[in-house]
Amino acid sequence: MEHIHEECGVFGIFSQTRKDVASLSYYALYSLQHRGQESAGIVVNDDGILNVYKDKGLVSEVFIQDHLHSLPQGRIAIGHVRYGTTGLDAKKNAQPICINHMKGNLALAHNGNLVNSYELRKELESTGSIFYTTSDTESIVYTIVKERLTSKSIEEAVYKAVQKLEGAFSLVISSPSKLIAVRDPHGFRPLCMGKRDDGDIVFASETCALDAVGAHFVRDILPGEIVTVSSSGIHTNKSLCETCKKSLCAFEYIYFARSDSIIDGHSVHLARQKCGEFLAKSDTVKADLVIGVPDSGLDAALGYANASGIPYANGFVKNKYIGRTFISPTNSQRTKELNIKLNPIRSVINGKRIILVDDSIVRGSTCRRIIRSLREAGAKEIHMRISSPPFIGACYYGTDIDDPEKLIANQHTIKEIADIIEVDSLNYLTVEQLKQIVPNGKELCTACFDLKYPTRIANHQSKSKFENKIKF
Amino acid sequence: MEHIHEECGVFGIFSQTRKDVASLSYYALYSLQHRGQESAGIVVNDDGILNVYKDKGLVSEVFIQDHLHSLPQGRIAIGHVRYGTTGLDAKKNAQPICINHMKGNLALAHNGNLVNSYELRKELESTGSIFYTTSDTESIVYTIVKERLTSKSIEEAVYKAVQKLEGAFSLVISSPSKLIAVRDPHGFRPLCMGKRDDGDIVFASETCALDAVGAHFVRDILPGEIVTVSSSGIHTNKSLCETCKKSLCAFEYIYFARSDSIIDGHSVHLARQKCGEFLAKSDTVKADLVIGVPDSGLDAALGYANASGIPYANGFVKNKYIGRTFISPTNSQRTKELNIKLNPIRSVINGKRIILVDDSIVRGSTCRRIIRSLREAGAKEIHMRISSPPFIGACYYGTDIDDPEKLIANQHTIKEIADIIEVDSLNYLTVEQLKQIVPNGKELCTACFDLKYPTRIANHQSKSKFENKIKF
Amino acid sequence: MEHIHEECGVFGIFSQTRKDVASLSYYALYSLQHRGQESAGIVVNDDGILNVYKDKGLVSEVFIQDHLHSLPQGRIAIGHVRYGTTGLDAKKNAQPICINHMKGNLALAHNGNLVNSYELRKELESTGSIFYTTSDTESIVYTIVKERLTSKSIEEAVYKAVQKLEGAFSLVISSPSKLIAVRDPHGFRPLCMGKRDDGDIVFASETCALDAVGAHFVRDILPGEIVTVSSSGIHTNKSLCETCKKSLCAFEYIYFARSDSIIDGHSVHLARQKCGEFLAKSDTVKADLVIGVPDSGLDAALGYANASGIPYANGFVKNKYIGRTFISPTNSQRTKELNIKLNPIRSVINGKRIILVDDSIVRGSTCRRIIRSLREAGAKEIHMRISSPPFIGACYYGTDIDDPEKLIANQHTIKEIADIIEVDSLNYLTVEQLKQIVPNGKELCTACFDLKYPTRIANHQSKSKFENKIKF
Amino acid sequence: MEHIHEECGVFGIFSQTRKDVASLSYYALYSLQHRGQESAGIVVNDDGILNVYKDKGLVSEVFIQDHLHSLPQGRIAIGHVRYGTTGLDAKKNAQPICINHMKGNLALAHNGNLVNSYELRKELESTGSIFYTTSDTESIVYTIVKERLTSKSIEEAVYKAVQKLEGAFSLVISSPSKLIAVRDPHGFRPLCMGKRDDGDIVFASETCALDAVGAHFVRDILPGEIVTVSSSGIHTNKSLCETCKKSLCAFEYIYFARSDSIIDGHSVHLARQKCGEFLAKSDTVKADLVIGVPDSGLDAALGYANASGIPYANGFVKNKYIGRTFISPTNSQRTKELNIKLNPIRSVINGKRIILVDDSIVRGSTCRRIIRSLREAGAKEIHMRISSPPFIGACYYGTDIDDPEKLIANQHTIKEIADIIEVDSLNYLTVEQLKQIVPNGKELCTACFDLKYPTRIANHQSKSKFENKIKF
Repeated sequence: MEHIHEECGVFGIFSQTRKDVASLSYYALYSLQHRGQESAGIVVNDDGILNVYKDKGLVSEVFIQDHLHSLPQGRIAIGHVRYGTTGLDAKKNAQPICINHMKGNLALAHNGNLVNSYELRKELESTGSIFYTTSDTESIVYTIVKERLTSKSIEEAVYKAVQKLEGAFSLVISSPSKLIAVRDPHGFRPLCMGKRDDGDIVFASETCALDAVGAHFVRDILPGEIVTVSSSGIHTNKSLCETCKKSLCAFEYIYFARSDSIIDGHSVHLARQKCGEFLAKSDTVKADLVIGVPDSGLDAALGYANASGIPYANGFVKNKYIGRTFISPTNSQRTKELNIKLNPIRSVINGKRIILVDDSIVRGSTCRRIIRSLREAGAKEIHMRISSPPFIGACYYGTDIDDPEKLIANQHTIKEIADIIEVDSLNYLTVEQLKQIVPNGKELCTACFDLKYPTRIANHQSKSKFENKIKF
Repeated sequence: MEHIHEECGVFGIFSQTRKDVASLSYYALYSLQHRGQESAGIVVNDDGILNVYKDKGLVSEVFIQDHLHSLPQGRIAIGHVRYGTTGLDAKKNAQPICINHMKGNLALAHNGNLVNSYELRKELESTGSIFYTTSDTESIVYTIVKERLTSKSIEEAVYKAVQKLEGAFSLVISSPSKLIAVRDPHGFRPLCMGKRDDGDIVFASETCALDAVGAHFVRDILPGEIVTVSSSGIHTNKSLCETCKKSLCAFEYIYFARSDSIIDGHSVHLARQKCGEFLAKSDTVKADLVIGVPDSGLDAALGYANASGIPYANGFVKNKYIGRTFISPTNSQRTKELNIKLNPIRSVINGKRIILVDDSIVRGSTCRRIIRSLREAGAKEIHMRISSPPFIGACYYGTDIDDPEKLIANQHTIKEIADIIEVDSLNYLTVEQLKQIVPNGKELCTACFDLKYPTRIANHQSKSKFENKIKF
Repeated sequence: MEHIHEECGVFGIFSQTRKDVASLSYYALYSLQHRGQESAGIVVNDDGILNVYKDKGLVSEVFIQDHLHSLPQGRIAIGHVRYGTTGLDAKKNAQPICINHMKGNLALAHNGNLVNSYELRKELESTGSIFYTTSDTESIVYTIVKERLTSKSIEEAVYKAVQKLEGAFSLVISSPSKLIAVRDPHGFRPLCMGKRDDGDIVFASETCALDAVGAHFVRDILPGEIVTVSSSGIHTNKSLCETCKKSLCAFEYIYFARSDSIIDGHSVHLARQKCGEFLAKSDTVKADLVIGVPDSGLDAALGYANASGIPYANGFVKNKYIGRTFISPTNSQRTKELNIKLNPIRSVINGKRIILVDDSIVRGSTCRRIIRSLREAGAKEIHMRISSPPFIGACYYGTDIDDPEKLIANQHTIKEIADIIEVDSLNYLTVEQLKQIVPNGKELCTACFDLKYPTRIANHQSKSKFENKIKF
Repeated sequence: MEHIHEECGVFGIFSQTRKDVASLSYYALYSLQHRGQESAGIVVNDDGILNVYKDKGLVSEVFIQDHLHSLPQGRIAIGHVRYGTTGLDAKKNAQPICINHMKGNLALAHNGNLVNSYELRKELESTGSIFYTTSDTESIVYTIVKERLTSKSIEEAVYKAVQKLEGAFSLVISSPSKLIAVRDPHGFRPLCMGKRDDGDIVFASETCALDAVGAHFVRDILPGEIVTVSSSGIHTNKSLCETCKKSLCAFEYIYFARSDSIIDGHSVHLARQKCGEFLAKSDTVKADLVIGVPDSGLDAALGYANASGIPYANGFVKNKYIGRTFISPTNSQRTKELNIKLNPIRSVINGKRIILVDDSIVRGSTCRRIIRSLREAGAKEIHMRISSPPFIGACYYGTDIDDPEKLIANQHTIKEIADIIEVDSLNYLTVEQLKQIVPNGKELCTACFDLKYPTRIANHQSKSKFENKIKF
């Protein structure tokens, strides 16, 4: 799949004793790395004093030994990984955000995107708030801190603040003595709770992070729920649950989440296999092999193979050593970046009719290059099957996508797309099928496929105006 | 699979015109990276002047933009990747080796290991040669250069020198105006020739490097063959072919080579599937799923599934962001490195009887950890199947393995191993089956499985003495 | 001299045309590097959009080619260097500070220290401001931005804000279209204006930065003055001038400033020579040579030599290659860090009676080590002369010094100090002499020598409380 | 002074006990850094096993903590710093050179340049030696090792080898159990011996390195002497002493050596002052101030001032933070690199008649820029005085200089040079005066001033041919 970026992954830990919570956060962030490769950060709260290290880059690049060990022990830590853009912004926008306040320091990590950040910010600025960035996360922090001035506790402040926020937000927050996890009432982004054998409570975007820190899954945070962990135990505030239609992002199952994660009770891997099964069931094409595009199409391809009876095959070798510093070939070198990164196995492909499965098509250009490489490897027929519906609309809830006009399915019919990407046939999953890949599929947000946005869209035009005016 | 290291990968290119041969070598080395991660190097021969850049690290680490672009254009280049050890040696031992001589400069890259390097070296030293390292490659270079003093051409010198070398050596050599490829008469290590549309001739350890530089496969270099490319064309000397029993390393098919490569006419991927099929055919165990250990067991697992009719499944998620700088968890952190790197998918595993396929067992410890993680994920039964015979003996031909006494199969029966790694049953491929995975399977070297070494073993005791005496 | 740290150096440039103002800022910061080695930063204002790059480290470390060139062209830039502490704070506290606001973005760089920052901050927080750091500079920015909401222009906002600030502050500020320079009414820290031949207006902490960017000196900014540069020219607001006693920090002449700078009309170099002359005139000791401690004592030593008639000599070689990464010798190595860094020239020292001149003594330990090294080099007598009065009190105006109780002169008489540092005699400059080293010497702040602080000291206890509570 | 490069600095240590000899070498190399900034290396001989770390860069860059600590303890270590060129060569040519041989490993560090390296190499190659580089040091190593085959001891081999070498060579050599120091019979380059209180014997290019490791000076190694240190004590072979005319490089006193060093019994600092005194004594010009060009002209300027009675002044501030990564200003920035690096102090210069002293003029361009900057700072007259004779000839003994035709004094009369560099008058030291700056001045090599080369010049043409043919 090409270039859809999840916004972020978040993690938090509360321990009964002072310990190396930074390292545990580090392992958790490693397992959430797929949710964001732009920047990484960890804050250790050591008895009310916040110690942060964050920078642009992968977890492994940001937290070299010296940096990780520069963080002290503590009882609370939160961590964050952020999606991949480039340039100076990465450093400025790295999370968690930490602020220093007479009512107590605060650190916060956010996954998602607000739809009312412009209004929030306008109001905050008019009453004296001063912003360093254009990020909506800064608005969340300011809203909470403002409420704190008139609240009895940080959890009360969070509760009041959350009611002012619209859109997608899974948050982990550290006050001087508490760890708080919040999931927006729509539940756009996942958030779960786990427990380690030594009693540490952890929160994470996905269950794979629980596995990484040796925690067992306790439960998902409910849409609208606020969970507070302190020395006096775990308290939950569910007042805001059920106030909105549940709307977990369907792309979490299709692409974003790691396939070993369980989200809102359902296995990501099985959901992906289910997508492949649905594609197979509504298909009549004859073929010799089913092949997935590594790595995003493999699970659905296996589901397709199982349901269709057509043999599953490994069709490509993906070069696992390609890194950030790869220097792309020039045209004059007559060698293709794609073949260096993803090479078809000719002995598998040659002379075969291929079912090629991927999770989505964004612009179509990468897809076409892959298909051409299969033709060069001798594929007789190529039938492309996409394990999601045609991707036509923008996302306002934390998925960073191109201008909708650049989405191939926004501009072309399926028949036209098949011609453009040069396949013999092309099928997509339907929205109806998508809503059946997990038992609670009716509660998925499918707005980017059917334009049925579960919230008002207030500031999206304004947003771009903002972004253009400052570049930190 | 645990820690078997291939020695190296080699590449060479001869162009009709002066061009950016360094970049093409860079892409080729990227695709050969699996053959060695310790160091990488490229020599560009620019009209007789050798320009080298080499250092320890991955291709992507050694050749950052400035370093790659510091190499000039030229008509000949050779490149090398070397296997993964640690420490100061990596830098010292990086190849290609370049020497400066009045008869002309010489650069050489070597994959394999000599069995008579101690004798060679003793003789060379007694006649005045001075060595910088203990590497057998330096002995090869010196032998060639000495022969050059009394030869009419570099190819004559290479021909004479090769007759003094015993053991495994696939070489690419650049003289001021020629590119020479040599494969030892046993053909222990692979070496192939390709051609780009613009007429450039390339040599590489594996065909996947041809794909990476947009070259089509011409043919394998024969065991014992010396191919010389110069402005006057391609000349071959086959005088030494058929002087020895062909002995391509069986582990090239089982593990080392990339599955999209074709070696000596046969697809690595299909050979691996064949291993799985053999395992299935001689098996009677009942199971729900066939799972491969990523990435080395996946092809054989698929072969097993196809032949047995038991469904193939993706049983693990491998974290693709774990890098060199990963900081391992301490025991006190109660979190497991393995689960961070390779996490079982509980929804797939839970309650199932599993056929688990991997390519080999070395010491058994990694294997046991993986099996335990499957048990924790709910596996009801685990039947391990290994797509190679029990690994019991040392290799003297370029595979860097532990002391044979540390090989689990050298010390234990299959039954004992099954108990140690805690599986319900364990089967290996037989040597007889191994010799049938490719049509010319009789010609494979299987010495590490059956101790039938195709050469005398002259200096292996001496060798270790050497290694201990100097550490550059 | 040992470890007195100046807080910062600032620079600003306003050009009539869009150009590479980042590079000019870079050269200016190079020449101001002696004022702060902890962090460096440059903001380019490109038509209202602020582009910042800042990090911990020296100018040369922060602004490697890629980073400097990542900044766009623009018409306004400001830059900052910050004094040298260690650790995580350096990154967090790097200046300039940039904020994003609906009334326009703002960047600000500050040299100095407020004495009412605690009150300011308390008031700002109680009305909703949220702070990221404990730095007083953040309070300055917030005060200006708050005033901006009710002001017609940024310069009006600055004028109102300045009236709320107490203490030391030389500021350069970039609004979307204006460059503003401010110097506090006491004029604690220097600030001057220059002009380049192409009409660019620049502000800098010292005139050496004007030389570095090819600008000629126009004039010093007056204590209390606010100078605004915009497309409509240069406007000045002197309403706040003469509202306070002028109090330029005496240490600027004694130590901080570069000796080629002219501050408030007087040459730093000549002021230092004058210190040496005063020391000589009130001295009767007989000696063979006058030697300065490199580099801070050299100018005064020359002044002493000229006034006394005792020959001036180069007594030490300072190793100019010692850098940040120097690994200090351990005791067991029996080698001395001092001799590696600063080695006496035995052929000069041996058998001589030495006048040794330095600018100050802080704790006395470095001083004693230097004196011992002279003894080992054969000095017969050592008479130490200090070109400032005994250093006894804290500074609240931007000089980062130890706890006064650790100052040797705060705890000991001159006689005792002479014994501790093991000299044959010791003399200091008197405060009266200090007030004569420049014509306007009466206007110098000499509070750290005579405890006559020119402002109330409001928050210094509170300050330390603050610093301890958070560590970003 | 502009761009004359010394070839190298060497160091060796022999300890009675196994200890951290690497760190002591590191401190010694720090103090020899002025002799070479291109590369640095240390070899620790740990009971016959050689452990080397070397790379391009300054000592502080090459030996970051991890690299220094990667070296084990041992009883012998040798170290080397090499002069500053750029590019790929730096890494390849870094010393010490280490070789592995059945007669025992060998490490060698060399300061100087052979004049018969071409003949040596030709002979060595014809008898089978194979060279990796074009460096003459490799020829020295090979000659010694060849002699070793037929010698009873390494010191005998060194003695025989030295007789085959012509030109300049100060060597430190580590055999498995001995440390050997050699100085060529002309004594072109300095080499001295010291002893630490714990009995460690050290050899170094200059005495400043003895100070750095806490050793006291024992004596200079005599021209032609071979000193061997082993467990059985210190043995010297003086057979080759007095076989050649002593010819210590005059530039060691004028420029290369550090002024706190004592070379062949005479203080470098005093020799430089003496140069200034001679200049003053033969001068009649009237002036107000004597100023040295930092740092190379300062000592002679002080000597001039003392002898003439004209006051000495500090005329420049040299920016001590300019490092390797400095990005030079472009012409369009209208700012001058020189003023950023070396700024005149206007308050000193303005209106004055200046005697400006430097150690030499190479091409004249830097000199002219400095003089122009003094004019801009208001100098009324500038009288340049050079503390060496006109520099007209090549050096074949280890000083890396431009083609003689690019030397301004090789092409122009003194009068013409004065016009070119725009001074009011110009005087040089005479060769006769130079020969009186130290008592044994008659024994100085002054060939680059008077073309009286103390050896035949055999291979200098050949040399350049060589250099051009290979570039590693």
